[in-house]
Amino acid sequence: MQFQRLALFGVGLIGGSLARALKRASVCGEIVGVGRVHADLRRAVELGFIDRDETDVGRAVEGADLVVVATPIGAMRGVFERISGHLAIGAVVTDVGSAKMSVIDDARAAFGDAFPRFVPGHPIAGTEKSGVEAGFADLYRGQRVILTPTEWTDAAAVERVRQMWEITGAVVETMTAERHDEILAYTSHLPHMVAYALVDVLAGLDGGGQMLHFAAGGFRDLTRIASSSPRMWRDIALANREALLAAIDSYGARFGALRAALDRADGGELEAIFIRAKAARDRLGPAGRESPEA
Amino acid sequence: MQFQRLALFGVGLIGGSLARALKRASVCGEIVGVGRVHADLRRAVELGFIDRDETDVGRAVEGADLVVVATPIGAMRGVFERISGHLAIGAVVTDVGSAKMSVIDDARAAFGDAFPRFVPGHPIAGTEKSGVEAGFADLYRGQRVILTPTEWTDAAAVERVRQMWEITGAVVETMTAERHDEILAYTSHLPHMVAYALVDVLAGLDGGGQMLHFAAGGFRDLTRIASSSPRMWRDIALANREALLAAIDSYGARFGALRAALDRADGGELEAIFIRAKAARDRLGPAGRESPEA
Repeated sequence: MQFQRLALFGVGLIGGSLARALKRASVCGEIVGVGRVHADLRRAVELGFIDRDETDVGRAVEGADLVVVATPIGAMRGVFERISGHLAIGAVVTDVGSAKMSVIDDARAAFGDAFPRFVPGHPIAGTEKSGVEAGFADLYRGQRVILTPTEWTDAAAVERVRQMWEITGAVVETMTAERHDEILAYTSHLPHMVAYALVDVLAGLDGGGQMLHFAAGGFRDLTRIASSSPRMWRDIALANREALLAAIDSYGARFGALRAALDRADGGELEAIFIRAKAARDRLGPAGRESPEA
Repeated sequence: MQFQRLALFGVGLIGGSLARALKRASVCGEIVGVGRVHADLRRAVELGFIDRDETDVGRAVEGADLVVVATPIGAMRGVFERISGHLAIGAVVTDVGSAKMSVIDDARAAFGDAFPRFVPGHPIAGTEKSGVEAGFADLYRGQRVILTPTEWTDAAAVERVRQMWEITGAVVETMTAERHDEILAYTSHLPHMVAYALVDVLAGLDGGGQMLHFAAGGFRDLTRIASSSPRMWRDIALANREALLAAIDSYGARFGALRAALDRADGGELEAIFIRAKAARDRLGPAGRESPEA
């Protein structure tokens, strides 16, 4: 067995898909699930992707050589604090949060001497669905996982976490937490803010309900991600606040330039913006069928 | 035959799909195609959705009881001017433009006494593809077509155009041009501007290419419409400039409120915005498979 015991905090889409993939590969001696909602843990045992559930954090972590924190990002600090006194010697801890600088700060504060064995991670995958039933073993196949080790992070610990993700079929890359947070701000967090604001402005208009009725596929595609969990996105936005504010402001400047061109009826400038954007978008390929999200 | 001769200006996605649907229903004595690009007209004859092509505008329109102008919106004024001296007595003219106030102004100026038989129309359907090969007979099935007759528009002419669209399987509704333009500004034109600006800001960043590489499905879905024709969207934006500026500004205000909540780390307000938006978006249903667009 590559891993003797995996302690998994959070059995939703992200954690549940990871556990399903590791189960299928038979690489864990035991997967112990921990979570707030006992019914979810019982369901995860029924579905067979965890071997047992544990409500006592200390007992869950004891003897685990690998701990994966797959809770919503807002709950991670509390989990880190509760587990830090119970970690086995040499245990490796990793997370799945969409923002890495703030999670690293939380981990540094909670883990003290064990901080070098914390490997910050983020699988760039997901759907707008969530919950214990939502996961599937192939969620990560061909998707990217970004690890953002700090200068103190143990190289062997990074290697263990890389192995874990590669078993799921993911492509693992490393970069700084700062660069990760900037990339995610632009490619995921900003688009979510934009989608939420677009729907919200329609919902708030007189006759906005009638308008939604006429919304065609372009609008539907564009705002699909506004169906994502409000609480989760509140926490992600706050966790990546600085990078997201910077991305919002550079988008605002670009959108302002587009508005100014329209205001002065400058067709040449509008077309130049649209041509640049189309060229960049065409390089991306069609809309994702599997609808992965950050 | 419900229509003796249909003169169709523009054999691309919108006009070509209409002609295919009318052909299939065998309701036209003859469909005469007119367009700028002769090779496209020849191809349309080969594909069988027009009976013959005509480069002489006068001959194309003479004897036609129905004229459909399905060119890009920026070209409509010129077409109206060229056909107005050739229309048969009683001929009904309609268009497919995404903005209606400006098209109505163009038609009023061009048609003079024949203006009451001009029925402004807009099928809310499309894909990001375009061209003579892109159309299909079922494009309009179950989709909405909005007609925006003015106070001068002849009721019998409106009825003829309604019949034409109903043959394609579309659901026809009427409203004022002003309301149409406001609805389209919010549900189609604004989202296109947002998508173009989002891609453009990434494309313009140092390392933006690397960022696009990490863009997940959410970003892909959200920006799919940025692959639409830059020239067509330049013309639509200019044609619906006032309503679009108003929509941009109310979106800007809402987005600014979201930014302000993030700036002051106001999680309660962020979550309230996201909850409102999610509730509105969830009523819309999933992203459109057929990817219709305005």
